[in-house]
Amino acid sequence: MKFTLSFTALTTVAAFAPSAFTPKNAGVPASTSSLNMALKDGQTPVVIGVAADSGCGKSTFMRRLTSIFGGDVVGPLGGGFGNGGWETNTLVSDLTTVICLDDYHSNDRNGRKVSGLTALNPLENNFDLMFEQIKALKDGKTISKPIYNHVNGTLDTPETIEPTPIIIFEGLHPMHDERVRDLLDFTLYLDISDEVKLNWKIQRDMEERGHSLESIMASIEARKPDFDAYIDPQKKDSDVIIEVLPTNLDKEDKKTLNVRCIQKDGVVDFSPCYLFDQGSTIEWTPAPTKLSAPAPGLKMAYRSEQYFGRDCQVVEMDGSFDNLQELVYVESALSNTKTKFYGELTQAMLALADAPGSNNGTGLMQTLAAFAIRDIYEKKTAAAKKVKQETTTSA
Amino acid sequence: MKFTLSFTALTTVAAFAPSAFTPKNAGVPASTSSLNMALKDGQTPVVIGVAADSGCGKSTFMRRLTSIFGGDVVGPLGGGFGNGGWETNTLVSDLTTVICLDDYHSNDRNGRKVSGLTALNPLENNFDLMFEQIKALKDGKTISKPIYNHVNGTLDTPETIEPTPIIIFEGLHPMHDERVRDLLDFTLYLDISDEVKLNWKIQRDMEERGHSLESIMASIEARKPDFDAYIDPQKKDSDVIIEVLPTNLDKEDKKTLNVRCIQKDGVVDFSPCYLFDQGSTIEWTPAPTKLSAPAPGLKMAYRSEQYFGRDCQVVEMDGSFDNLQELVYVESALSNTKTKFYGELTQAMLALADAPGSNNGTGLMQTLAAFAIRDIYEKKTAAAKKVKQETTTSA
Repeated sequence: MKFTLSFTALTTVAAFAPSAFTPKNAGVPASTSSLNMALKDGQTPVVIGVAADSGCGKSTFMRRLTSIFGGDVVGPLGGGFGNGGWETNTLVSDLTTVICLDDYHSNDRNGRKVSGLTALNPLENNFDLMFEQIKALKDGKTISKPIYNHVNGTLDTPETIEPTPIIIFEGLHPMHDERVRDLLDFTLYLDISDEVKLNWKIQRDMEERGHSLESIMASIEARKPDFDAYIDPQKKDSDVIIEVLPTNLDKEDKKTLNVRCIQKDGVVDFSPCYLFDQGSTIEWTPAPTKLSAPAPGLKMAYRSEQYFGRDCQVVEMDGSFDNLQELVYVESALSNTKTKFYGELTQAMLALADAPGSNNGTGLMQTLAAFAIRDIYEKKTAAAKKVKQETTTSA
Repeated sequence: MKFTLSFTALTTVAAFAPSAFTPKNAGVPASTSSLNMALKDGQTPVVIGVAADSGCGKSTFMRRLTSIFGGDVVGPLGGGFGNGGWETNTLVSDLTTVICLDDYHSNDRNGRKVSGLTALNPLENNFDLMFEQIKALKDGKTISKPIYNHVNGTLDTPETIEPTPIIIFEGLHPMHDERVRDLLDFTLYLDISDEVKLNWKIQRDMEERGHSLESIMASIEARKPDFDAYIDPQKKDSDVIIEVLPTNLDKEDKKTLNVRCIQKDGVVDFSPCYLFDQGSTIEWTPAPTKLSAPAPGLKMAYRSEQYFGRDCQVVEMDGSFDNLQELVYVESALSNTKTKFYGELTQAMLALADAPGSNNGTGLMQTLAAFAIRDIYEKKTAAAKKVKQETTTSA
């Protein structure tokens, strides 16, 4: 039903390829799909790390990313959408394989009950295997990857994963282990502030599922020490950090979000997106006649900042908008979006109009990150091709 | 010497016509110059009103304006530059005549000593004659205008003024009398805040001329009641108001200026200039690598405001810049500047690089106003020509 809604929105944009995200083969194990595009001779996969806590929008981001890369999707996303019944956590489209790092849990749920450790603890994750398998995939080799069953909490029969041109490693710890981190071509951290996490959990677990505020607070508090110790520190090593904070426009407002896309300078094959004028400092309230926004309004900003001692460029969107079609006006104010034509950013958002965050900065920044990843993939592939051609010519 | 400096700056810009502002005929009464371009058959002069207190930059603005219209200048400006020895206050170039409204003083200096009124008082100005003569010029008739001698404080033998395509009425009261105001095609008010006026007077009269602070304060206080009663109220009737305020960037800084160009919406043949995006609200600190600015820095802004109940668009420049050449970067961020090619705004500033305010918002906003006036002139002339052609065709 979600997809139907998404296509309804899509029909408003003529040029968009309508084949993305048709879940026709959903449920078929990834490795058996003939759609899985093998690596071309000598091609090295581009490997992207995406870190975040569970329930923080990784799944939505994966939908946005795969949508932009196009192609048919086989295999579901992780447990974020409640799709626990699938046999695999791996998502595969024509070009991309998305591997959920929960599959590298050392113990099943019962094992963690014995150890007394959370899944956030590095001791509960097999980084040696993670490293070996990422390395193998980068070398063009097929791997046999464990499957962690989110419904039963069991470790199921491993699945065969063939390398594809793009491989996304998403989960709690993609940048924790230095060996693994060094294999990643580009890294992204989804940083949801404690206040927003609480608001989201209250909305989902209290308002929709009837849990008590006390139990929600207790579950957050229980996770926090390990989260702060093992997950949060990865953001300082990330190339792009998407920060999700409460709005600054109204201190009473608990639902509206201020989303900041922190983009590091000096990352190979990545040039930060900016608003209007590179290197300047800007605060911009779009014209209300061109972009309709509910209270407390919408404000964007762009500036240079230091993030853990590194030069960064930050694009912010505080607030929501009423009509996704009007986002093309915001798109016109952004440069270095890595889109291929004017309006492609808005189209990509419209294609997933039903997805969480499509009316605010979370959707916008995720989509910008997805275009950046496409651009990085294309640059690295073109560079590798050039090297190969030169090698052939000189041989 | 000033002109030499100005041409030195000019050589850095190739396309600029170098003939503007060569004072070769200076001192020759305006009406005797063969360079004075007569009105074409049936042409109606476009009449612009410029209001401000004395010593507030009107003379500089006239230089900027006449420079943009081009052509040779005959006859000096008013007393602002200390050119009191000239026989006339009228400035004439190929297209424009600038009339100083001091020429309509009812009494000479001795007469005002008898009346006990200041020149700011409307009773000391002959609005009937002012109205009659503006009306006559608009009707294409030659007038015999009085001359107020700023050096001697006497009313000298009147001079003959022929109508030119553009006539500027500048002085204390161009918008005071409703009959006069109704004849003006476009109006501008130079609004220098009390604090800035005091700082300027301290700089000129105390630091350069050795006057005491007490005498400066006394002279300001003496003028203030009449200024507030008769001059200041004209700003609410102006199409554009250039507000000059102390900087907001450093409360201790007494020299740096924050200049606001308040542009009314709905003025015939005038569309406000804006920064980046029309109808939005923007604060912009230009990239320091592209525009070098001394402390306390430089910040621009753009927003919609209400000014005496009227919708306005406001462009602000707070702070100064080091290198006028770099202003082209600011120019690239402005739209509706009414320039004819990219860089013309910067060129016009460079042509008068020596003039006061050429390193800050006063020069920028005056130049923007000058381009707006050129645009208004061209639009009104084109419209009149079209009407005439249609009349001829249908006859």
